[in-house]
Amino acid sequence: MTNNYCVIMAGGIGSRFWPASTEQMPKQFLDILGTGKSLLLQTVNRFIPIVGIENILVLTNEMYKDLVLEQVPEFSEEQVVCEPARRNTAPCILYAAIKIWKKNAAANFIVAPSDHIITKTNEFSNAITNGLSFLEKQQESCVTLGIQPNFPSTGFGYIKRGHQVESDLFEVEQFTEKPELAKAKDMIATGQYYWNSGLFMWNAAHLVELFSKLQPKMFKLFEDNLSTINTNKEIEALKEYYPQCEDISVDYAILEKDKNVFVIPGNFGWSDLGSWSSLKDHAKKDLSNNMIIGSETVLFGNCSDNITVIPKNKKAIIQGLKNYIIVDTKDALLICPIEKEQEIKAFVKKLNSRA
Amino acid sequence: MTNNYCVIMAGGIGSRFWPASTEQMPKQFLDILGTGKSLLLQTVNRFIPIVGIENILVLTNEMYKDLVLEQVPEFSEEQVVCEPARRNTAPCILYAAIKIWKKNAAANFIVAPSDHIITKTNEFSNAITNGLSFLEKQQESCVTLGIQPNFPSTGFGYIKRGHQVESDLFEVEQFTEKPELAKAKDMIATGQYYWNSGLFMWNAAHLVELFSKLQPKMFKLFEDNLSTINTNKEIEALKEYYPQCEDISVDYAILEKDKNVFVIPGNFGWSDLGSWSSLKDHAKKDLSNNMIIGSETVLFGNCSDNITVIPKNKKAIIQGLKNYIIVDTKDALLICPIEKEQEIKAFVKKLNSRA
Repeated sequence: MTNNYCVIMAGGIGSRFWPASTEQMPKQFLDILGTGKSLLLQTVNRFIPIVGIENILVLTNEMYKDLVLEQVPEFSEEQVVCEPARRNTAPCILYAAIKIWKKNAAANFIVAPSDHIITKTNEFSNAITNGLSFLEKQQESCVTLGIQPNFPSTGFGYIKRGHQVESDLFEVEQFTEKPELAKAKDMIATGQYYWNSGLFMWNAAHLVELFSKLQPKMFKLFEDNLSTINTNKEIEALKEYYPQCEDISVDYAILEKDKNVFVIPGNFGWSDLGSWSSLKDHAKKDLSNNMIIGSETVLFGNCSDNITVIPKNKKAIIQGLKNYIIVDTKDALLICPIEKEQEIKAFVKKLNSRA
Repeated sequence: MTNNYCVIMAGGIGSRFWPASTEQMPKQFLDILGTGKSLLLQTVNRFIPIVGIENILVLTNEMYKDLVLEQVPEFSEEQVVCEPARRNTAPCILYAAIKIWKKNAAANFIVAPSDHIITKTNEFSNAITNGLSFLEKQQESCVTLGIQPNFPSTGFGYIKRGHQVESDLFEVEQFTEKPELAKAKDMIATGQYYWNSGLFMWNAAHLVELFSKLQPKMFKLFEDNLSTINTNKEIEALKEYYPQCEDISVDYAILEKDKNVFVIPGNFGWSDLGSWSSLKDHAKKDLSNNMIIGSETVLFGNCSDNITVIPKNKKAIIQGLKNYIIVDTKDALLICPIEKEQEIKAFVKKLNSRA
C-alpha cells in the first residue's frame, strides 16, 4: 500500500468562463476543450498512476457531490469530501489533512487544482514523484511545483527560488502576490521566479502540526472534534464548527509563514485556463485563426482571430467579426471583444443583478 | 350566410429569416415580433370579423398541415388545403377557387398572404369590405390592395393606377415588376404607383372562367377532375394531375392579362416583413436603438443599432457591436452585419451544402 494521497480541489465557481461555466456547472466539470473528458476527470486520470484511484479525494461543495460521482463513477461516496460552508483553502486543506492522517499516520499528500491542464504528463509525473520522494526524506517540508513563466503575467502569484537542494529542487525564498506589469518584467528577467501552480505536497502529520502552531484557533476547532473525523458523526459535527473557521488561503495561513518550502520548477505544458483567450493555444483553429470548439457546422465570412464555442448540435453563420469571443450555451449567449474578457465577470454580475 | 371567403396562402419556405425561419418552421408560423401570436394566427384573426372563421381556408404544403391545425385549433381539417407539389400561386389559387365555387356558386373570395403584418386593422377591414361590395356590383373584376409607398423600394412589384372609379378605388393601368432604383424613384414621384400587396379579391366563378380562357391547359386538368373536388376522391386525384400544372404565378398567368383589375390604395400599417431589418419599425428598442425580441435579460455594452432575437428563457451579454443582426435559436446562431442581410440566403445555402 502506498502512503501517498491526492486531494483535488474542486469547489470553485469561477465566472470568467461564463456562460460555459456557471454556478450550477463550474469550469472544472466542463470539457472546455472538447476532448471528451472534463477537466476534473483529466486531473483524476493524471493522479491515478501516481497514488492509485482509492487514494484520491475530491474536495468540493455539497452541491457538486453528485456531479463528481457522475463524472468519476469509480469513486466511493467517501472520496467526495464536501465543505459545509464556502471558505478559502486553509480550512478545507486542514480538514483533508486530518482525514488522511487519521487513516494513515505516515501519509504524504498532494493538493492539486481540478481545473488546470497539463499536456506534458510524463514530466509532470516525474516532478510529483520526485517531490514525494523528497518528503520521505525530509518530512517537515512542503514541496510545490513552480511553472517556468513565458511572459510577464500579472494574473499569477510568483515563487522566488533560493538555494538549489537537488538537481530539480530549490528552496523557496519568497512567495509574491500578483505583481504589477513592470515588477513582473523585472522578476522574470532575473530567471529566479516561477508562477505559483497551486499544487503542493506535504506529509499529513507535519501539516497538521504546522496548523497547530501557525493557526491555533482554526486547529482547535478540528482538535475538539477529532474523534468524529472519519466516523458517521463527522458531517453533523463539521456543520457546527467548520463555518467558524477563518476564511483564509493556505498560502497566507501556512506557506508564507513556513521556512521549509521547496519548489520543483518545470513547464509541464501547464495552463490554468484562466480565461477564454487562454484556450487559444489548445484548440483547433481555421486558416483565419478562428478557434472553434463544439459545432462542426460554423460558416465564417470575413472573420479572423475569434474564439468560438457553439454546441455540437448547432449550426452557426458568423460574418464580419475580428477578435471576438462568441460563446453559445443552452442558457446564455456571450459576444464580447477579446480585449474586454477581463470584464466578463463584471458583466455577468451586472446581468444577474437585473434578472 | 355570407358569400365571402378568404384563402390564406401559407406554403412559403423563405430563408431570409434564417435561423428563426426554417423549412420545418417557416416565417408565417413564427411569432417573429414576440406578440404572442404567429403571423398566420394574426392573419386568421384579421379575417374572422370579415368572412367568419368557417369561410377561411389555409392553402399550404402537406408538411405544415399539423402546424396550421395546432396554431388554429378552431379549424376543421377540411379548411387546411394542401398542395400535393410545390407550384407557384396560379395552380393553387385556381384549386381554391374551384373548391369555393363548387361549395357556393355566388362566392367572392379574398386571397391573402399569411406572413405580412397590418397594424391599422380598421382601415384594412374597410378596404376589404369596400372591395367585396364592389365585386357584388361588378362580378367580372379583380380588386387588389395597393400600398402607398414611402420609399423607392426595389424589392416590391408596383401597381400603376388609372381612372378613378370610386372615392377609394381606381382602375389598374399596369403591373410593374421589381424596378431598378432610378425607375422606382421616378415612379413614386408621379404619385400614381402603389406597392403590390399580394392581396386580391375575385368572384370565384369569374376567376374560374378567367383561367378557362387565359390558362386553358391548366384549367383542363382541373375540369377533367371536377367531379372529385370536395369529395373523398379529391386528394388522390389531385396527386395525379396537380404536378402537371405549370409553375406560374397568378400575377403573370391572370392579372397582367386581365383588363378588369382595380386597386384600393392605402397604408394599413402594412409590412411584408421581408427581412430582419424590416422588423425594426415594429419591435421594442433600447436607448441605443438596439432592437430586442424575445429575451428580457440582454446586457448590451458599447452597442447600437443591432437587431437581436434571443429565446425568451436565455440570457445574453453582447459587447461592442454596431449594426449587426444577432439571431439565436435552438438549432442555429446568426451573427451578421445588417448591410449583408441580402446575402443571408446565400450563406444558408453555403452552410447547408457543407453540413
